[in-house]
Amino acid sequence: MSTRVGIIGYGNLAKGVECALSKTSDMELKGIFTRRDPASVTIKSEGVNVYSIDALKDMKDEFDVMILCGGSATDLPKQTQEYVKYYNVIDSFDTHAKIPEHFKNVDEQALLNKHVAIISCGWDPGMFSLTRLYSNCILPNGTDYTFWGKGVSQGHSDAIRRVKGVKNGKQYTIPVDSALEAVRSGSNPELTTRQKHTRECFIVPEEGADLAAIEKEIKEMPNYFSDYDTTVHFITEQEFANNHGGMAHGGFVFRSGSTGWNNENKHVIEYSLKLDSNPEFTASVLVAYARAAVRLAAKGDFGCKTVFDIAPALLSPCDGAELRSHLL
Amino acid sequence: MSTRVGIIGYGNLAKGVECALSKTSDMELKGIFTRRDPASVTIKSEGVNVYSIDALKDMKDEFDVMILCGGSATDLPKQTQEYVKYYNVIDSFDTHAKIPEHFKNVDEQALLNKHVAIISCGWDPGMFSLTRLYSNCILPNGTDYTFWGKGVSQGHSDAIRRVKGVKNGKQYTIPVDSALEAVRSGSNPELTTRQKHTRECFIVPEEGADLAAIEKEIKEMPNYFSDYDTTVHFITEQEFANNHGGMAHGGFVFRSGSTGWNNENKHVIEYSLKLDSNPEFTASVLVAYARAAVRLAAKGDFGCKTVFDIAPALLSPCDGAELRSHLL
Repeated sequence: MSTRVGIIGYGNLAKGVECALSKTSDMELKGIFTRRDPASVTIKSEGVNVYSIDALKDMKDEFDVMILCGGSATDLPKQTQEYVKYYNVIDSFDTHAKIPEHFKNVDEQALLNKHVAIISCGWDPGMFSLTRLYSNCILPNGTDYTFWGKGVSQGHSDAIRRVKGVKNGKQYTIPVDSALEAVRSGSNPELTTRQKHTRECFIVPEEGADLAAIEKEIKEMPNYFSDYDTTVHFITEQEFANNHGGMAHGGFVFRSGSTGWNNENKHVIEYSLKLDSNPEFTASVLVAYARAAVRLAAKGDFGCKTVFDIAPALLSPCDGAELRSHLL
Repeated sequence: MSTRVGIIGYGNLAKGVECALSKTSDMELKGIFTRRDPASVTIKSEGVNVYSIDALKDMKDEFDVMILCGGSATDLPKQTQEYVKYYNVIDSFDTHAKIPEHFKNVDEQALLNKHVAIISCGWDPGMFSLTRLYSNCILPNGTDYTFWGKGVSQGHSDAIRRVKGVKNGKQYTIPVDSALEAVRSGSNPELTTRQKHTRECFIVPEEGADLAAIEKEIKEMPNYFSDYDTTVHFITEQEFANNHGGMAHGGFVFRSGSTGWNNENKHVIEYSLKLDSNPEFTASVLVAYARAAVRLAAKGDFGCKTVFDIAPALLSPCDGAELRSHLL
């Protein structure tokens, strides 16, 4: 029998999950839950109902796992610990500093209600974290480097849109090529924030706005831009619509370490992602971990987990013998 | 209490394990077992005994796990299934085609004797396999590419040393840059064997040998060289000793796939290793998985496993809370 999956939310991430589920043979989308009026939400999947989020608590027997597609700022800190009371759940909580607190809250409710929660699935946290963990275990004597981009930073884009005179704006984080090359060479460079990434802003100004003032305010903004080399481009609304609607992203994780009695042998591990669609890739990770959550629940292995706690074979629709024959 | 580790064998891989163990704080080398006369074997670790391999069966209470460092051709197919009767064991069995058979033999004895075996740990099979599995689960619609090198192929080096007139020789497998770039671009190229790797041979000829005949025989050798562009260099014994004693290796694993209702969004996952010492890196993987084997055994989760079955957190000396805070 197919695994019965629900989606909570219907933004870009949820749409990615809907699409990814349509391409699995062992999982089935059984419902989408929204805070909006369900009648106002049109989804792509035929024969699937849209429900009010208020109906969630009464449908416990109809779903094996819920994929939570809300945001990390305000949705997930409340939703995951609430809905794990009723379902096995997956989320992509990505506020690194608050993961320990989120884990604790969710773990308590998961254990109490005998459900599985897998939090912080995606690529960072997620696949990048896995690379860091495996690489640290193999090369305990070494240094980690993580680079992001080229891709849109939502937080920085929000920040530039709050600047006076800015009508619309988008910010790209770009890893510095020479820094990537230095790390790749195994030379273990010490890199400042400025040396690792540059920031590029595309701004649609309000009519008559003071462009020089906008540029100055952005470049000097503490935390967001003052520690970086930032470029500001002013463009038209039309240009913005044509060229800056994409959701590409990616990045690089390195561990550069050494072995040998005198640490004489260097090793460089590199993992990178180049993604046309950040939300669709993250959604694909969520779907794979949803499969694992259902399997863990079937074994009675309840509680809150992260990607670190999940044996990789649990993510696959194939059985162990098939995996050993074809992928090992 | 430290995990008590034994090593079976004392070649390059075993020496790498010895060195890696010396740098852990939670594991301790308690003995090395050899087929040679123990008195003839001098090891680096002080206060550690060298035993005859015949003593293995009588020391069951003195070791938590044995790391088997024999070869895949003749040693491991016999040793792993034999020694798992007495100990939890780890091996680096790397004959891909024979993994299912090896797994079955080891699994039977492991279950019967309530031990854990983790087979085929290293980088391929091992870390490369993990990348293939994770990437296949996330991007079910896609193509895998694996490239090896630049590094020494033991099998191909053995093959050229069997050619008449060859005194010594070494073969390097080299991935073709343009093929790597094509895969990296996401264009999903179909690549022939010849397009993926070139082979470079360094030969010390016997005095008076027919160099043209050697070169022809190598380049036309079926299976090993005839499907590749091969370069043959003749060098002196001194040059061979100076420049070709290294054990560097590495390689690249890619998955290039797409998401979206019409597969309109492309994604490229790339994992690569650049290793100064192939045996020391493989040894470091073995040591991390030895830690996991002991933990699985303590939970009573017996049987034969591969890297696919091991939750990554089990490889780390740190606890879950520490990992979530620092690496997630």
